[in-house]
Amino acid sequence: MTRTTQQLLADRNRLLGPNVSTFYDDPIHVVKGEGVWLWDADGRKYLDCYNNVPHVGHCNERVVEAICRQASTLNTHTRYLHEGILDYVERLTSTLDGALDTAVMTCTGSEANDIALRMAEGMTGKRGIIATDATYHGNTSLVSQLSQSNVPTVGFGLRQYFRFVEAPDSYRNPDPDGTKFAASVSEQIAAHEESGTGFAALVICPYFLNEGFPDHPDGWLKPVAEVVRKAGGLLICDEVQSGFGRTGTHMWAHQKMGIVPDIMTLGKPMGNGHPVGAVVTNTDILATFRKGYRYFNTFGGNPVSCAAAMAVLEELQEKNLVDNAKTVGAYARSRLDQLASKYSVIGNTRGSGLVFGAEMVLNHDDKSPASEFTDRVINAMRHRGIILSKLGRHKNTLKIRPPMPFSIENADLLFDTLDDVLAKTPVTP
Amino acid sequence: MTRTTQQLLADRNRLLGPNVSTFYDDPIHVVKGEGVWLWDADGRKYLDCYNNVPHVGHCNERVVEAICRQASTLNTHTRYLHEGILDYVERLTSTLDGALDTAVMTCTGSEANDIALRMAEGMTGKRGIIATDATYHGNTSLVSQLSQSNVPTVGFGLRQYFRFVEAPDSYRNPDPDGTKFAASVSEQIAAHEESGTGFAALVICPYFLNEGFPDHPDGWLKPVAEVVRKAGGLLICDEVQSGFGRTGTHMWAHQKMGIVPDIMTLGKPMGNGHPVGAVVTNTDILATFRKGYRYFNTFGGNPVSCAAAMAVLEELQEKNLVDNAKTVGAYARSRLDQLASKYSVIGNTRGSGLVFGAEMVLNHDDKSPASEFTDRVINAMRHRGIILSKLGRHKNTLKIRPPMPFSIENADLLFDTLDDVLAKTPVTP
Repeated sequence: MTRTTQQLLADRNRLLGPNVSTFYDDPIHVVKGEGVWLWDADGRKYLDCYNNVPHVGHCNERVVEAICRQASTLNTHTRYLHEGILDYVERLTSTLDGALDTAVMTCTGSEANDIALRMAEGMTGKRGIIATDATYHGNTSLVSQLSQSNVPTVGFGLRQYFRFVEAPDSYRNPDPDGTKFAASVSEQIAAHEESGTGFAALVICPYFLNEGFPDHPDGWLKPVAEVVRKAGGLLICDEVQSGFGRTGTHMWAHQKMGIVPDIMTLGKPMGNGHPVGAVVTNTDILATFRKGYRYFNTFGGNPVSCAAAMAVLEELQEKNLVDNAKTVGAYARSRLDQLASKYSVIGNTRGSGLVFGAEMVLNHDDKSPASEFTDRVINAMRHRGIILSKLGRHKNTLKIRPPMPFSIENADLLFDTLDDVLAKTPVTP
Repeated sequence: MTRTTQQLLADRNRLLGPNVSTFYDDPIHVVKGEGVWLWDADGRKYLDCYNNVPHVGHCNERVVEAICRQASTLNTHTRYLHEGILDYVERLTSTLDGALDTAVMTCTGSEANDIALRMAEGMTGKRGIIATDATYHGNTSLVSQLSQSNVPTVGFGLRQYFRFVEAPDSYRNPDPDGTKFAASVSEQIAAHEESGTGFAALVICPYFLNEGFPDHPDGWLKPVAEVVRKAGGLLICDEVQSGFGRTGTHMWAHQKMGIVPDIMTLGKPMGNGHPVGAVVTNTDILATFRKGYRYFNTFGGNPVSCAAAMAVLEELQEKNLVDNAKTVGAYARSRLDQLASKYSVIGNTRGSGLVFGAEMVLNHDDKSPASEFTDRVINAMRHRGIILSKLGRHKNTLKIRPPMPFSIENADLLFDTLDDVLAKTPVTP
């Protein structure tokens, strides 16, 4: 049976509970995906400019083939020996600085960050964590409490271990060399130490994807890394969104930002939608963690997950998708900049590779957020068959983050449509 | 390239860190699975009598077909509408008491238990959890601290919220009607209340799989459920191991034990190895949790996970695998009992359906555990091509828990071999 949208929403409420968020008030009932395209139940086609989970494209042939082949051959836990996990970790770590040479495989980025914080606790003997005030690092009891935008009232009361710094914002509060950010982290380190909690780690997305991907020059994280190390803490880079070549210039955003983290965590795009995540770190940190806890994850690193994840790395390499992100991303930025010179509602354009966007403002002087306008643009785009989203403190930044095979032609369709929508959408209704 | 066992172990140590446990000192390098069978890299065939993750059989055709079909059609998160998750939750809850009618889908049983504890916190406003002293409920920072056998030294210090009761043991400490267990839970509830923590929930596997599956009559959990409810706490049943018809008489072990939990958690066998888990509860608890935290899980409930999980339910029904567990389990118990009358080292046999085993003792009077003997038996069985394991406080209980399509013929091979191994293995070497 095929349910109508109303029936789907009613059944979701009944079977999955209230407040299960959807994209759009009139959410899309998707039934098929291929490359950068999605189809709804009525056969309508959408250009997916937002989903970073199907990193190498919806239903990517190489990934699907790897999953089918391995699922029909063997799928079991890692208490048996299997080459899949070893080949994968070897290949994954070969893309990283030599110090990042070991990994724990998990099923989700949340599980990965949950481990990373415990690694920091194990290494430092302290529990004080610092994050930005506009981030998200997952949904477990521990890491959910790192979110300031979706603050849980449940979670066994761990918020006393978390301190927050203002998220970087290159448009409204420029910090061209990262020293202001480093200073604010330094302040919170001192506050952790003074409170008796002590400082364990700073956890950040090195490209600040949830914070609105501020425009920073390469190497921007060096000052903060120095501050963290000087204080004896660990630097955790959550590359769940920023990794796997998303920024076009580097495989990992921390490389772009000029640093080597102590711990890197992975999730969403790693298996192109297959549930797989990882914590990558150095031998010393991993050994200390494993001494403190004999971690085992039944599904983590199973042969099918590793086959899916390996196929993603292979696809990235063989289709030159990181280069593609650079080329198409540069083209997209130029088209976006053209729109910015045409429509004054665009206050700022930002991004690198296949993550880019524009901040919408009512005027350029006081930069008042055009949040409601942004919402109307996104809904108009959806009805024109283009999926994108918004984010940022003021919900006024278009966030565009398509699968990595996004082409010049796709970018043209996106910006031709956006041009038309901007022309037809009054800033104040 | 194919690594030797030595190379595999060296690479595991280098790439995955120390203390990543394996089955057997001479672990098996598995390359292929089918039904109840595994094959190693040398082409050697093993009868898998232990792995409950491939619940409907290794590489089950229906599950593999469902994964391949859905992975090549669409895989995306639940912020779009899709029928897969709704059809699955509808079918899953149809196997349960009417009160258990909503679910949160996750990727692992650990994530499910991590949510369940927060639901209890949300409903009661308290944090005191009770579990047995020989259990395991997962690997997140929160739930890892529920384990007394693998106590983490990391985890942001939540152990003050956990109190433990002695695990039921029908052989050494009989409690035929469950009143002793209920009384010990009652004591810990009082201790939680006295300490100011307050009592939130009791979390148990209703068939006590990790504790050694003690021999209890149906309905045995009624007294403890009464104690928990009277104290205003929630009863969480972790059916990760005991569910999906494992015990042969019921789909869920809590039904066998005569109770309806407030929350049921699922994991391992749910997707036959595909990473999927769930928390099933009533509308009130789910709504309260979601009010306290807008939980979202990127991979949780995605179309592929739901297709895999649905195929498991279909396979169970269409192949009558719960009945099969009952029939073959009864036959296995009779063969095990015959061995018990032949070999005095077998002190006790227990189990229901396709989870059964035998406790090995040096003598029947003081029941001294024959732990070292049990180890030799398991290793001898492995070299005869039969995989099983041991558990229990004294590591002297054979744990046999094969995939659900296990046949009379498979049971004959298992027990003929076990008979021979017991005959040839001296109790004291």
